[in-house]
Amino acid sequence: MPISARNKLRGKIEELQLGDVMAHVVVRVGDNLIESVITRRSADELKLKKGDTVSAVVKATEVMIQKD
Amino acid sequence: MPISARNKLRGKIEELQLGDVMAHVVVRVGDNLIESVITRRSADELKLKKGDTVSAVVKATEVMIQKD
Amino acid sequence: MPISARNKLRGKIEELQLGDVMAHVVVRVGDNLIESVITRRSADELKLKKGDTVSAVVKATEVMIQKD
Amino acid sequence: MPISARNKLRGKIEELQLGDVMAHVVVRVGDNLIESVITRRSADELKLKKGDTVSAVVKATEVMIQKD
Amino acid sequence: MPISARNKLRGKIEELQLGDVMAHVVVRVGDNLIESVITRRSADELKLKKGDTVSAVVKATEVMIQKD
Amino acid sequence: MPISARNKLRGKIEELQLGDVMAHVVVRVGDNLIESVITRRSADELKLKKGDTVSAVVKATEVMIQKD
Repeated sequence: MPISARNKLRGKIEELQLGDVMAHVVVRVGDNLIESVITRRSADELKLKKGDTVSAVVKATEVMIQKD
Repeated sequence: MPISARNKLRGKIEELQLGDVMAHVVVRVGDNLIESVITRRSADELKLKKGDTVSAVVKATEVMIQKD
Repeated sequence: MPISARNKLRGKIEELQLGDVMAHVVVRVGDNLIESVITRRSADELKLKKGDTVSAVVKATEVMIQKD
Repeated sequence: MPISARNKLRGKIEELQLGDVMAHVVVRVGDNLIESVITRRSADELKLKKGDTVSAVVKATEVMIQKD
Repeated sequence: MPISARNKLRGKIEELQLGDVMAHVVVRVGDNLIESVITRRSADELKLKKGDTVSAVVKATEVMIQKD
Repeated sequence: MPISARNKLRGKIEELQLGDVMAHVVVRVGDNLIESVITRRSADELKLKKGDTVSAVVKATEVMIQKD
């Protein structure tokens, strides 16, 4: 079931912090760390845990460009 | 001038498509291609062009997690 | 491959307008029309067309609440 | 005072969870449940509670399309 | 009908550019110019034009903080 | 290092509330208060505190227009 979001970065969960409503997820993708904030409920329902292989998914309209 | 956005992925512009109001930017970051849609005006003002070194910047609240 | 986005609204594409960089998609979901703007490239790659069954997917952090 | 956001889904609050900074709101819209994360302050100021009639409002650029 | 979005900046439209799918709107708010990209359809339906008094509305989760 | 985000509103932090995962930041910009929700980690790493001069940064695609 393909989705229109153009960015899917595959990696492994390196850290997971559960808050009351939100959860902070850190995913290692190659040399980069991708950080995500999702609902606590999604973290629970997906049973996310350190070491899981996941994809960080981002809609193209959410990506900014910074020039060096 | 550091910014709160937690994701900054450094790469090179591999493709740039200019539309009337928006522009589509493809950035190579390691093994991944990151795609971004920004305003045509920003693309013009930043004088973006193929081969430029840039960072793709994403706020953590915009990143979803997909389980494999 | 479940995703953390909490909103998936199933419906049928009722209208599709292709622009240079972006595409406007209108999906009928029950009594509601859901409108989406995605990249033209995603619309092309997913081969979207009128009548297709799709889901409109929205991250919970993007949903506002308006009181009557 | 009409707003440019193209999606307004009317329903009833079915669940409300208040966190320290954020609040999780679940709204029944026809056969669907729409989930929203807003600030705790907005939940307090709007005096949201279970059973309230509200609209879930989403900007079209935040809606992705997933093909079946 | 109050909305949970915490930022409403009142000003006047100083410039409006209509594209095929999207429209670029520039609003003067005090000493600042606020730029917005909305659908062309919303710009048409709201009959936006230069000089209109409008509010730029932003959800708090979309605002980043940059330190000087 | 210029960024494509078109809105940068300079002001002073008037209030800062730290939650478990997220932080709520209120910035005075001229006559307006801008409210932002960022990760607790960014608030800590940027060492944000009341009185700091900061910019609120917003991508144009996140700004809606409401007519009076």
